[in-house]
Formats: sequence, C-alpha cells, structure tokens
Amino acid sequence: MPNPTAAMLVIGDEILSGRTRDSNMHHLAGELTKAGIDLREVRVVSDDAAAIPNAVKTLSAAHDNVFTSGGIGPTHDDITADCIAAAFDAPIDVRADARALLEAHYKRTGAELNEARLRMARIPDGATLIDNPVSTAPGFTLANVHVMAGVPAVFEAMVASVIPTLTGGDPLLSQTLRVNRGEGEVAALLGKIAADFPELSIGSYPFQKDGAYGTNIVMRGQDGARLDAAMTRLADEVAQ
Amino acid sequence: MPNPTAAMLVIGDEILSGRTRDSNMHHLAGELTKAGIDLREVRVVSDDAAAIPNAVKTLSAAHDNVFTSGGIGPTHDDITADCIAAAFDAPIDVRADARALLEAHYKRTGAELNEARLRMARIPDGATLIDNPVSTAPGFTLANVHVMAGVPAVFEAMVASVIPTLTGGDPLLSQTLRVNRGEGEVAALLGKIAADFPELSIGSYPFQKDGAYGTNIVMRGQDGARLDAAMTRLADEVAQ
Repeated sequence: MPNPTAAMLVIGDEILSGRTRDSNMHHLAGELTKAGIDLREVRVVSDDAAAIPNAVKTLSAAHDNVFTSGGIGPTHDDITADCIAAAFDAPIDVRADARALLEAHYKRTGAELNEARLRMARIPDGATLIDNPVSTAPGFTLANVHVMAGVPAVFEAMVASVIPTLTGGDPLLSQTLRVNRGEGEVAALLGKIAADFPELSIGSYPFQKDGAYGTNIVMRGQDGARLDAAMTRLADEVAQ
Repeated sequence: MPNPTAAMLVIGDEILSGRTRDSNMHHLAGELTKAGIDLREVRVVSDDAAAIPNAVKTLSAAHDNVFTSGGIGPTHDDITADCIAAAFDAPIDVRADARALLEAHYKRTGAELNEARLRMARIPDGATLIDNPVSTAPGFTLANVHVMAGVPAVFEAMVASVIPTLTGGDPLLSQTLRVNRGEGEVAALLGKIAADFPELSIGSYPFQKDGAYGTNIVMRGQDGARLDAAMTRLADEVAQ
C-alpha cells in the first residue's frame, strides 16, 4: 500500500523577504520520512488573506495531511487561524478551552491577558487543540490540516505531539554509496538500475573534494531487500 | 508603481525527504529584495514529470518572473529542462551552443563528454542560456522562467548573472526596533500603526533572552520618509 502523503504550507512575509531563514521545512521533512509519510509538496506564501485559504484548500484536497507553520501569534499580521476557518467555512471565535489555557498561563507569569493575546485563543469550531509545551498558545487540527506556530522550538514541539496521532506508513529506508567518479560517469548506470528498480528512488549528489570529483548516490525505498539488491548491484558495477 | 513580482520553484526529492537542507530559497529571497522584486510564493516539488510542468505553468502565469532550482544535471532524475519545455510546448533537444560549451569544458578537463553529460546540453528552442562559471553546464531562460542548478554555488552564480538583466523596482527598505516587551504587549499598537501606514509591511518577531521577553519589530516599505514616520511613532509610543 502506498504511504500516506503530506504537504506543508509555510506562512510568512519574513521568509519571502529573506529576513528569516526557514528551518521548519527541513525539520518536518525529516520527521515525516521517519514516520513513513511522503512529503510531496511545500508552499511558502505571504501573510495574505487570499493566498492562505487558496493554498490550504488545494493542498488539503490533494494530500492526506497538511501542516502549516506561522501566523498564529497575537499581532495584526497573524491571520492564519481565521484563514483556515475561511478555507473550511468554519465559524471561528475565542474558544473557552483555549482561553482557559491562556488565562492559566498569564496568571502564572503575572502578565495581562489583553485583547491582542486573546486572539491566540481564536480556534475554529470543530478543531482539536495541539499542545504547546513551550509558550502555551495552542495550535489546532481542523479536518486534515495541522496548524502550528512558526517559532522553531514551538513548531518542533507541536510536530512531536501531532505525528504519533497520524496513520503512518513503512518508514522510508535509505542507503548511500560514495563513489570517486563524477556524476556524469555513473549516470548511465544509475538510469539502468532505476529502470530495473522502479519502486526505489535513486538520487545522485555530486561533490568536489581536494580537486577530485565524486558522487554520493542515495537510494530510498520501503523494501529493505530490494534496496540491498540495488545497492549490491551498484557497488559491483562501480567496482568493475 | 508596484514592484515586479516573482515566484520560485525548488525541484528535488532530496529536499522533501529531509536529506538536504535547501539554502537557495533564502539566498534568492535576499537578492530579489535588494533588487526591488517581490518574491510572493515558493513551491517545492519532487522530481515528477507531472508536478513540475503544472507548477511552472501556474507560477509563470501569475508572476513576472519565475526562478527554478534543481534537476538540470546528467542523471535519469534530472528532468527539469524537459519539463519546462513541456510546460511551454517548446521543442527540446541537444543544442549546438550548449554542446559547444560542454565540449570545450570536457576537452579542458580530459573527461569524456558521454551521453549522460550531453543531456546537460538539452535546451528548449527559443531559450537563452544562463552562464555557469562554476561547472560550465548552462541554465536557461524560457519566457519568464529562469532555470538554474540546485548546487548552491552554481545557483548563486546564475542568480548573480540573471538579476541584473531583469526590470527591478524600488528596493525594499527595512528598519528594525528591538523592544523589551512581549509581542502581546505591543500588538495593539502595531495594529494601529499598520492601519495608518497601509503601504508598509510590519512584522513582529518575539524572542526570549536571559528569561526576559522581547520583540523585534521590522517595518518594510519602498518609501523611506513614510518608513521613518512610522518608526518614529512606534519608538515614541513604546517609550511612553
């Protein structure tokens, strides 16, 4: 059975302007691979009330799971929750369960739960909350969309609590062979092996070290025996 | 006049599997911001013969410029050039000008210009070549799509040669104020300033240092005087 699929939507002007270097995509990609869920597509959009719902609708219809990062804080440009609600025609308002979490948090820290912070309790009807062990303000899951914070420490904590709740597949196994030949010298051989092992994904990554060309060849797949067979053939033929 | 817009398409299974951390998006974002071109959207897709042309067609129609990275090497999974040709219904084959570049390069290095390497001379009819000062195999521009290598050193060199040929806009100016207050305490004020300065983009980025909360407030826009006015108001009101 093919593995479940996923897409990610990164929300934030700061990524597109080059101010901030996104790290959430790489983190999520690694965690999904371990869980046997195929990340098929990532989109990065700005804090835009049209772009976010459009992307969410498209990705939610095309994939088993969608993960979003960014735009769930207290400021005027944090519009993700409302955009997700709009995408699913779900009513949204400050919700009692999320408000209770924030009240307890701000009581503990002595800060005021003002109107801006209360925006972080806006949760669409029908969504389930995602725990935020770092700074309390929750994420949420609505339909197949998991809405998470952009701050990496919070995003990573939310991913850790969401992934075990999902239906995973066989983890993607991976083997790498490093050869001291240029990519163009092994390309024909790789093409033949790829044709004979269509269930594997075979990638080649050239490098240059101390003036010599080399290639890392990475094979990925769910069937360990087939992976071994393809890797053995590669090693044999490269050695000739 | 609004600035020209751009989108980026990152092509590669290795990004989506978490094996490789993409750095080209962040680089391009910064260079486009300097040139006054608004990067509006990024998509990451796998080495897939349907996903690549679909994304290229959508992005090319919606934006002034599209930049792709990845998939123009010599191996079986390097299908970007053919996918771009397919997206524009352009014929593609080994082209004499690109072949001449590769022939000179491999003659110089003493390696063989075999069939796999010759794939890197497949260029759609009507495209102009993009110089590759690092490893010779060229990128190309077809319509408003700039097709570049995924290897960061090559990608960055190609970006450097393409951007001066584009129509830019006013560079996006940016000012940052660091305040020792939590994001939730400045959110209401930021909302008011954002409403009074709709031509500016105002972002807030919370941080925690030595146990205290703070926020970096970033304002961006093309009009330096308006940026100064908004930043002065922010500083005055935060100081009260």
